[in-house]
Amino acid sequence: MPDRNRLVLDCNNMFADRTVGRGIATDRLDSLAARFRELHADVQRRRHPGPLGFYQLPFEATVVSEIRRFADWAAPLFENVLVLGIGGSALGTSALRQALRPPFWNELDDEGREHFPRLYILDNVDPATIAPLLERLDIRRTLCNVISKSGATAETMAQFMIVRERLLAALEEQGLQGHLIFTTDPVKGVLRQLAVAEGIATLPVPPNVGGRFSVLSAVGLLPAALMGIDIERLLAGAAAMIARCHTDELQRNPAGLFAALQYLAHSEQGAGIHVMMPYSDRLYGFADWFRQLWAESLGKRYRSDGGEVFTGPTPVKALGATDQHSQVQLYIEGPFDKTITFLAGPHEQDLAIPGPYPDSPELGYLGGRTLGELLDAERHATAAALAASGRMNMTIQLERIDAHAIGELIMLLQIATVYAGGLYGVDPLDQPGVELGKRLTYGLMGRAGFEPPALAPGEERWIAR
Amino acid sequence: MPDRNRLVLDCNNMFADRTVGRGIATDRLDSLAARFRELHADVQRRRHPGPLGFYQLPFEATVVSEIRRFADWAAPLFENVLVLGIGGSALGTSALRQALRPPFWNELDDEGREHFPRLYILDNVDPATIAPLLERLDIRRTLCNVISKSGATAETMAQFMIVRERLLAALEEQGLQGHLIFTTDPVKGVLRQLAVAEGIATLPVPPNVGGRFSVLSAVGLLPAALMGIDIERLLAGAAAMIARCHTDELQRNPAGLFAALQYLAHSEQGAGIHVMMPYSDRLYGFADWFRQLWAESLGKRYRSDGGEVFTGPTPVKALGATDQHSQVQLYIEGPFDKTITFLAGPHEQDLAIPGPYPDSPELGYLGGRTLGELLDAERHATAAALAASGRMNMTIQLERIDAHAIGELIMLLQIATVYAGGLYGVDPLDQPGVELGKRLTYGLMGRAGFEPPALAPGEERWIAR
Repeated sequence: MPDRNRLVLDCNNMFADRTVGRGIATDRLDSLAARFRELHADVQRRRHPGPLGFYQLPFEATVVSEIRRFADWAAPLFENVLVLGIGGSALGTSALRQALRPPFWNELDDEGREHFPRLYILDNVDPATIAPLLERLDIRRTLCNVISKSGATAETMAQFMIVRERLLAALEEQGLQGHLIFTTDPVKGVLRQLAVAEGIATLPVPPNVGGRFSVLSAVGLLPAALMGIDIERLLAGAAAMIARCHTDELQRNPAGLFAALQYLAHSEQGAGIHVMMPYSDRLYGFADWFRQLWAESLGKRYRSDGGEVFTGPTPVKALGATDQHSQVQLYIEGPFDKTITFLAGPHEQDLAIPGPYPDSPELGYLGGRTLGELLDAERHATAAALAASGRMNMTIQLERIDAHAIGELIMLLQIATVYAGGLYGVDPLDQPGVELGKRLTYGLMGRAGFEPPALAPGEERWIAR
Repeated sequence: MPDRNRLVLDCNNMFADRTVGRGIATDRLDSLAARFRELHADVQRRRHPGPLGFYQLPFEATVVSEIRRFADWAAPLFENVLVLGIGGSALGTSALRQALRPPFWNELDDEGREHFPRLYILDNVDPATIAPLLERLDIRRTLCNVISKSGATAETMAQFMIVRERLLAALEEQGLQGHLIFTTDPVKGVLRQLAVAEGIATLPVPPNVGGRFSVLSAVGLLPAALMGIDIERLLAGAAAMIARCHTDELQRNPAGLFAALQYLAHSEQGAGIHVMMPYSDRLYGFADWFRQLWAESLGKRYRSDGGEVFTGPTPVKALGATDQHSQVQLYIEGPFDKTITFLAGPHEQDLAIPGPYPDSPELGYLGGRTLGELLDAERHATAAALAASGRMNMTIQLERIDAHAIGELIMLLQIATVYAGGLYGVDPLDQPGVELGKRLTYGLMGRAGFEPPALAPGEERWIAR
């Protein structure tokens, strides 16, 4: 198979001439060209072994063959894979399954799953979900992949201690070694220490790859390989996008174009809500994955130069055509505060709509068409209606929904996020804002060294009982 | 069982004195008291038989016993219920299942489902989802509930014609009559005509109940009853909330309080993004359901008096604790443009966290606690951290997560939406903005009387290939 799909980024509806004057003036992009060249050069300098380690992930042949070997050994042995991970340790894997495996994966029988294991992702600590699941799964037929770069993620480690106890009860010591694999920092952290002490297999998360940029590391690749996803093609797609974004010419760099237009829409047109709206059930998980990437990278109190800004766009996930019946009324008629990015791909499998009622004005026109045609017509119509109502929108079109194209999409949005960090003037790699909540949680949970916080008591006045 | 749960609405963190001066001044609520009294009186006047038909739904004993009879007959006969519906015909049902039935419902065996059918909701027209599902389901063991008030919803009717053909192929004429039930307008529309012509059972959607206010009509009640949900308790909860919102005293009316505080946060503090963030997997579906209710009701170009406003808050769904690892960085450090509403309930089932590593500072404190305690601690910590960072938030606490409490929650938010319509000065019952997209879709699909739209051709200039 030739090593290319090439996604297409159609940005026409972002501009003023297509959005009754409400969009970006056509010369504004040119005004960013010089700044983008500097920014791009800076990004290139910070690539591996610098802090932007995600650029290197498509080229880690040794780790990939280690993942491939482990997956080829484990996939036939287990009925279930249980991922213990939250945030960046879960979102990419979930999106990969939705995009690249048949729908309703866990409901399918062995044949439907091509004899790959079911996949359960524990990305929360609600006992109402976890208790019934653990009662139902046969833990002896379950591989548990604990994913935490630091090894200190409270939710993941709480899950781990629960699952570990059940493995020991069912299988004794050998249960831990045969049924657990940790994905964590190659040197540091609690999980790394436990792996050494308890003889548990591990895969690395490179120190210069943060959680939200980690889907193409072992974090996402091991679960993907265990489901039968072609991880080598995924990485080839990502590599192709890196090559495509090598240019410092803004209009030819798709990640630059995406970042610059979203930034201009926000900073000059006031559109600070960035909706990602796939017209494809399979791509919906990437709207959720992007939501973390964009929010956590760009939502910052301080600029990189130290000034206080309280900035950042708010990403929103939506699904076409479903959300035409929920959100599009607001998108069309509400404030001019949004951009909408459509994701779409061709329909490899389609369904003909029969025409039993040719004389009905409400139903007749649907007969003889297909569901895929209807979905595409709705997407084109929504994009046109938004533009005609002065709402900026763009479309990312995949040439196929396959591993290569998904690799392209992932890398496009990761590189765009780093460029956007430069344009917003913030550090896209940190997340200082979550520290206070963590410290307060530790205090409430009684962790040594963390005072229980003085949570203000509820005043009766503002409580309705 | 006594007919009360009483949810609690804790609004303290919406106010300036709890949010380092960034919240609502404590006297602002008083300033709305008189306006609320008028608004409340107007809402009371427009209740059934006026346009606010949803107020009457808890008291439709005849329809409820018809639903109960049908469900009691059908539930033991079918393995699957297939709901064909989109938007308001799907979101409430999905939320009810998530809240009131065990997790992973469709994966459970007959015993795990207490011998109630599986439930599939076709709320989109992506053939990548629908084709494999229809190949897998035994259509002879499947009850199909087509839900469209008008009978003209393109997505639902396209699905219907596909499913109808398969029923005919598998079962001939009797298949339609035994395997289909339409939920639609009691008199008008295509589905009503087809029901008469083809002898298909029906349930009504009252003419004065719009899609997004219809979950407590047959739209949501039939699928709920088919899953074994106690619909009578659900309605009792809704009725209890109506009674509680009978007062025109703003501070004692929980729906009024919710609406007024969200409105003040938007109009006076610039917080136009309204996040609904359950700390409960079971309640997450209601964040999605609320998203339609709030967006489609309040996102409007024109005020009720005709003035152009382009107004409306943007609702966002989030999930705690999961989104602490995705969105909370932005909520804490980004622009002051959000309110966060937490939903929570007690943990009926909990899981103890073992303590195998008492000496580890990162893990030891978790041992001996429970997952439910961790989830609650994270919610309290996040609420406190948000307030300390100047971010307005409130908490809706259910006393139990059961049918009664869910009925209370649904009615609280529906009444709040009508009040909010009054405060924003818009008609919360219409959705004129989706018409253009519908007409353009008809044109693209070749429906008679609708011209194919002149979609502007993509200019090469703004397309990256």
